[in-house]
Amino acid sequence: MSFGIDNLPYGVFSRGDEAPRVGVRFEDSVLDLTAALHDEVFATPSLNAFMARGHRAWSETRALIRQKLSTDLAVTATHLVPLDQVTLHLPFEVADYVDFYCSIEHASNLGRMFRPDEEPLKPNWRHLPVGYHGRAGTVVVSGTPVTRPHGQVRMGVFGPTAKLDIEAELGFVVGSPDGASFEERVFGVTLVNDWSARDIQAWEYVPLGPFLGKSFATSISPWVTPLEALPRIPGRVQDPAPLDYLRRAEDWGLDVTLEVELNGEIISRPPYQGMYWTPDQMLAHMTVNGATLRTGDLYASGTISGEQPDQRGSFIELTWNGTEPIKLADGTTRAFLENGDTVTIRATAGALSLGEVSGTIR
Amino acid sequence: MSFGIDNLPYGVFSRGDEAPRVGVRFEDSVLDLTAALHDEVFATPSLNAFMARGHRAWSETRALIRQKLSTDLAVTATHLVPLDQVTLHLPFEVADYVDFYCSIEHASNLGRMFRPDEEPLKPNWRHLPVGYHGRAGTVVVSGTPVTRPHGQVRMGVFGPTAKLDIEAELGFVVGSPDGASFEERVFGVTLVNDWSARDIQAWEYVPLGPFLGKSFATSISPWVTPLEALPRIPGRVQDPAPLDYLRRAEDWGLDVTLEVELNGEIISRPPYQGMYWTPDQMLAHMTVNGATLRTGDLYASGTISGEQPDQRGSFIELTWNGTEPIKLADGTTRAFLENGDTVTIRATAGALSLGEVSGTIR
Repeated sequence: MSFGIDNLPYGVFSRGDEAPRVGVRFEDSVLDLTAALHDEVFATPSLNAFMARGHRAWSETRALIRQKLSTDLAVTATHLVPLDQVTLHLPFEVADYVDFYCSIEHASNLGRMFRPDEEPLKPNWRHLPVGYHGRAGTVVVSGTPVTRPHGQVRMGVFGPTAKLDIEAELGFVVGSPDGASFEERVFGVTLVNDWSARDIQAWEYVPLGPFLGKSFATSISPWVTPLEALPRIPGRVQDPAPLDYLRRAEDWGLDVTLEVELNGEIISRPPYQGMYWTPDQMLAHMTVNGATLRTGDLYASGTISGEQPDQRGSFIELTWNGTEPIKLADGTTRAFLENGDTVTIRATAGALSLGEVSGTIR
Repeated sequence: MSFGIDNLPYGVFSRGDEAPRVGVRFEDSVLDLTAALHDEVFATPSLNAFMARGHRAWSETRALIRQKLSTDLAVTATHLVPLDQVTLHLPFEVADYVDFYCSIEHASNLGRMFRPDEEPLKPNWRHLPVGYHGRAGTVVVSGTPVTRPHGQVRMGVFGPTAKLDIEAELGFVVGSPDGASFEERVFGVTLVNDWSARDIQAWEYVPLGPFLGKSFATSISPWVTPLEALPRIPGRVQDPAPLDYLRRAEDWGLDVTLEVELNGEIISRPPYQGMYWTPDQMLAHMTVNGATLRTGDLYASGTISGEQPDQRGSFIELTWNGTEPIKLADGTTRAFLENGDTVTIRATAGALSLGEVSGTIR
C-alpha cells in the first residue's frame, strides 16, 4: 500500500486554528505524534528538533510508530486525523539549500542545446557532482502558488519571464550534522520542483551561476520519507572511477520513478534509477572541503532526465528550448509554462508513494 | 573617535560562563543592552530579534543609547564591560548569504587574467549586479581559524588547495524583510572576508558557479554598524544608465576604505567608494524576481578592488594569479596564503571604525 506501514513519511500539519505540529502519514490520515508518543519534540512546527536527535532516535521512533500502528491500533486510531481535515506546512526549516546536476542525460541535453559545437559535457562533469547553493528562504511547500517572476530576460529588456520551467528532482534532508556515514546524517527524501526562468538564467548566469532565474521559488513535497523506508537497487557504473573520497562503500541506487503532470495530463516519467551521481557522493563532495552541515540542510539531485524523450524532467528538454512544443490532450501546445498551469510531480519508490509536489502559476 | 558616540555598532558578547547577549561597542567597552535598556530582546545570542522589530525601533534605540551615553553616563557606565573581558560571537544568525561581484576593477582584472583574448567584462556585467548564493552555515565570526580546504584542485588530483585566497568585501545585513526602502530593510554593515580556494574554484565552477572553492568558510567582523551611522558621499556614474528597477532615488556612495593586513603588514587599501554597483541596487536586483527576504539575510559586495595595484582586494589580483608574488617586509614572498598566515581586514567610514575581520590559516 502506497502510504502503508512500510512508508510512514513525516510532515507538519495543523487542524483549524491549532498550532502546526509533527505527524506521520498513514494511509489517508496523519498520526499526531505529540499525542500518540507523548513526546513534546513533535509539538513544534518543523521536523528539525526531532531530526537533530540523530540516527538512533529516527530508527527507534520509526519502530515504535510501526508497533503502535500494528498492535495498538485501537488506541492509536484516536490520534489519527483524516488528511482532508488538515493543512500541511513546510516540513522542516531549510538551513542551506544546494542543488546538484547529477543526471548525465540532463547535463548532456543542455550541453547539446547551448553548445552544439562542443562536447555536451564540460570536462569536470564526470569527475565531480557539479552543484551550487540556492536560496533557502524561498523553499515553499507544495500547493503554494508560484508567481511568474520578472527580471532582465535579455540585454536591456525587463519583463515577465517567457520561459518559465520546472525541474523535477529528488531532495535529501540532512537530519544530523554528526555521524560518519550517509545513513547517520541524512534523515530522508522529499520531492523538489526547482522552478526556473530560463531567459533570466541565460542572461545572468555567466560567470557565477544561476541566481534570480531560480531564487523566486523552489517547491518541496510536504512529506519527508525516511531513508530507512526506501528500497535499494544496484547503482549505475561510473566512468572514470571516481576519486577516493567519492568512492562508495556499497554500490546502490534508489528505485524511484517520478511522473510530471501538467494540468492533469502526464507529460514525462523521469527515472531516478539512472542518475549518475548518487546522494552519498553528493554529501561526500559537499563536505570534503571542511564545510559543516546543519540540521535542515537540503540538497537536491538536479533535474532527473532519462534517456528517452518522455523521461525528461524539464520543459527546456521536453520542448528543446521551446522549439518543439509539446501537444496536450486538450489540443493546446506548450513551449514553457503559461499562467494558470498546474504542475504536479509525483513519485513512487517501489510500492511506496513519495507523495507529490504541486504548484500553479499566477 | 573611531568607536565614539557617532559609531555604536552592535554585536553579541559574553563574559566568562554567562550566556551570549547583545551589546553595543562604545570606545573600548561593550554596553550591555539588556541591563542598560531593560529590554529582553537583547538577552539573546543574536541580533535577529532586535533587527526584526524594524527600522523605527532601530532609530529609536540608537537615539536612546546615545542619550544614555551622553547624559546618564554615570549610571550607564555600570553596564559597560571592558572589551578585554569579553568574547565576541557571530553577531546574527545568517539566513541566506548572497555574494555579489560589484567592483568593475575586480571583474575586469579576473577577465584579463582568465580570458585574455576576450573583452574583460562579460556582456551582462554593466547591466546587472552579478551575484550568487553562498553557504550561510559556514559564515563564522572574526578570529575563527580557517582550515586549508582539500578538494579537487584539477582533473584527477585531490589535495589541499595551493591557491588559498581572501576576498575583502563589505557586507549588508537585512534587518527587516518589510518596508519599501533600502533604509527600512537594511540594518547595517559588516566586514566580510570570503575565503577562496582558487584552484578548486577554477575546476568546479563551470557552468553553475563557485561552490566548494568558497563554502568552507566566510568570516565576518563581530560588529554590525548601523546604516544610520555611515556618512554618504556622491556615487559613481554608471554607463549605460541602469534599467528602471535599478535606478536610484538618490545618487550616493559610502565613504569606506579598507586595509588588508598580512601578518602585521598592510598589503592593500581597497576603496569601497569606487564600487560600480551599490547596495540599494543589489537589494533591488535580488528581490525583483519576487524573492522574499528574511531577517538575517547577508549580502556582500564582492571583492573590493580599486584602480591601483595596491588597492586590490584579493591575492589572485595582487599577485596576478601567483605569477607576481608580493614581497613582504620580512623578506619572504607570497603568491597565495601559507599555513600560519593571519589576514586582518580593517575598515573606516570617514572618522568611524568598522572594526576588523581576522583569520589565521591552519
